[in-house]
Amino acid sequence: MFFEGSEKKIELRVKYGVRSLRSYERAFWDRGLLLAGADILSVMSNDDCDAYILSESSLFVWDNKLLLITCGNTNLVKAGIFLIDEIGEDNISSFNYQRKSEFLSHLQSTHFEDDAKQLQSRLSGTAYRVGHLDGHHHYLFCSEMTEKLCSSTNLLMYHIKGEVADYLRQPSQIKQMILSQLNLHALLPDFIFDDHLFDPCGYSVNGLNGEQFITVHITPQAQSAYVSIETNLNFELYAFNIFTAMLNILHPRSWDVIGVNQQISTSGFPEHIEVARCDLQLNTTNYFNYKHYIQAASEKLTAHTL
Amino acid sequence: MFFEGSEKKIELRVKYGVRSLRSYERAFWDRGLLLAGADILSVMSNDDCDAYILSESSLFVWDNKLLLITCGNTNLVKAGIFLIDEIGEDNISSFNYQRKSEFLSHLQSTHFEDDAKQLQSRLSGTAYRVGHLDGHHHYLFCSEMTEKLCSSTNLLMYHIKGEVADYLRQPSQIKQMILSQLNLHALLPDFIFDDHLFDPCGYSVNGLNGEQFITVHITPQAQSAYVSIETNLNFELYAFNIFTAMLNILHPRSWDVIGVNQQISTSGFPEHIEVARCDLQLNTTNYFNYKHYIQAASEKLTAHTL
Repeated sequence: MFFEGSEKKIELRVKYGVRSLRSYERAFWDRGLLLAGADILSVMSNDDCDAYILSESSLFVWDNKLLLITCGNTNLVKAGIFLIDEIGEDNISSFNYQRKSEFLSHLQSTHFEDDAKQLQSRLSGTAYRVGHLDGHHHYLFCSEMTEKLCSSTNLLMYHIKGEVADYLRQPSQIKQMILSQLNLHALLPDFIFDDHLFDPCGYSVNGLNGEQFITVHITPQAQSAYVSIETNLNFELYAFNIFTAMLNILHPRSWDVIGVNQQISTSGFPEHIEVARCDLQLNTTNYFNYKHYIQAASEKLTAHTL
Repeated sequence: MFFEGSEKKIELRVKYGVRSLRSYERAFWDRGLLLAGADILSVMSNDDCDAYILSESSLFVWDNKLLLITCGNTNLVKAGIFLIDEIGEDNISSFNYQRKSEFLSHLQSTHFEDDAKQLQSRLSGTAYRVGHLDGHHHYLFCSEMTEKLCSSTNLLMYHIKGEVADYLRQPSQIKQMILSQLNLHALLPDFIFDDHLFDPCGYSVNGLNGEQFITVHITPQAQSAYVSIETNLNFELYAFNIFTAMLNILHPRSWDVIGVNQQISTSGFPEHIEVARCDLQLNTTNYFNYKHYIQAASEKLTAHTL
């Protein structure tokens, strides 16, 4: 029942005047995703964006940028190299690759050092690790860039528990009920949603509203319980904090908050301890901000019989 | 400069009346250790015990038990199977195998599940994991047993810092100075010590006093800084807590305390938060106790450029 929810992620932006990324045919995306080991399950569009649910996570395509997230044992860098070669290095204004440390890294077909070497064969850029090797850590490869990236934020939750977490592990779950329990329609009434329930468990949902997106991926399995949320919502424009809402529904034991050009308030977060933080200036206009939190109370661990 | 300090460990005990383990020739231990990928660098003895410093950690041999600890990418279970087959399953009263989660598990030649299967081909027993897959965790295999194990305790320290940690990373370090900085002669004046400094860094020391032992292994490299201390000292008989002393010399960011049939007081520990604990009853007479601590203050992480 082990599934690696930890994600790899590409954010690619093209220069002004370059062919719209949305003009590429479906077959183009299928070819690229096949290289990574993923395929398209569903698509939803609005005027600004095409949002794909994948067999492993999600792809969002705007005119001038794309966000491709994959989990499991995908080889996302192969898709990255495909995109760089097809779109053309000279047409790319920025290329960021992130990789979260895995629950079981020895089951992965590549490691970040290999990924970074491949990317550096096409684009000059800098590779970083944020966080210690013996805990949650995040790898980044950032191409040289000068333009300002959009704000985006990530909430990664580990070891969820409580009623909703229990429901997500039930064989009889239905996707309408999961969306309702996550309360996304009520919290984000202007968004349209597209979701998918995996067999025997696992859930993905994409949401769109104009240029704004949100994507939630849930790996509920007890040994590797992991939920990721990524969004470009401007938190300052909302009366509520979407991360606080999700934390109070899913009750993770620990969580990471990652912001690019945005700091997230902890207002309303469950009682917690900030374990670590990192502020990384990527260049003169962009910064990366990482924080790791745990619940305040000591955790009583149960020995797991193998 | 990466070295995997995380250890694998065998504690084997023979039944009353079985040939003394100390009567085996040096060639016997050489053969077993070769299978694991380790060799003997030095030996020290007293009336009760032979203590070996290995190329990867330590071996202690008493008449009726042995403790074999290896680090790096050793295959300790091969040595374990050798010992079981040579000593004879019927002569063994208990066999415990422990394995600490590694900093870089994908560089290991075996994983615990494989190890446990091999051991279960010889001895019936139970395999456990204590701790989440995405953090520090400990694997245990315990053969069926009824007798009471001796008390033993482990302090595992991660990301040491300060003057002594800095010294341990210097190319000009000398082993006499390390032993002196650890203050072991002063703390344990009745003990004899045997130590080894590795090139370019890394330090091991064994100490003996009657049936009592202590062993300290230091992997100072910044990316994977790790120090382990194991001892069968009865903490109640000493006016000081040896773990407190080591914590205040090496200033780790986080640490584990593991006790078998012994609870360790946190008196004098640096200001800390208990993150998690586990109490595991191995059988009617033996218990295993695990606690993980972090320093109370949030850690300011520096992005590591790869």
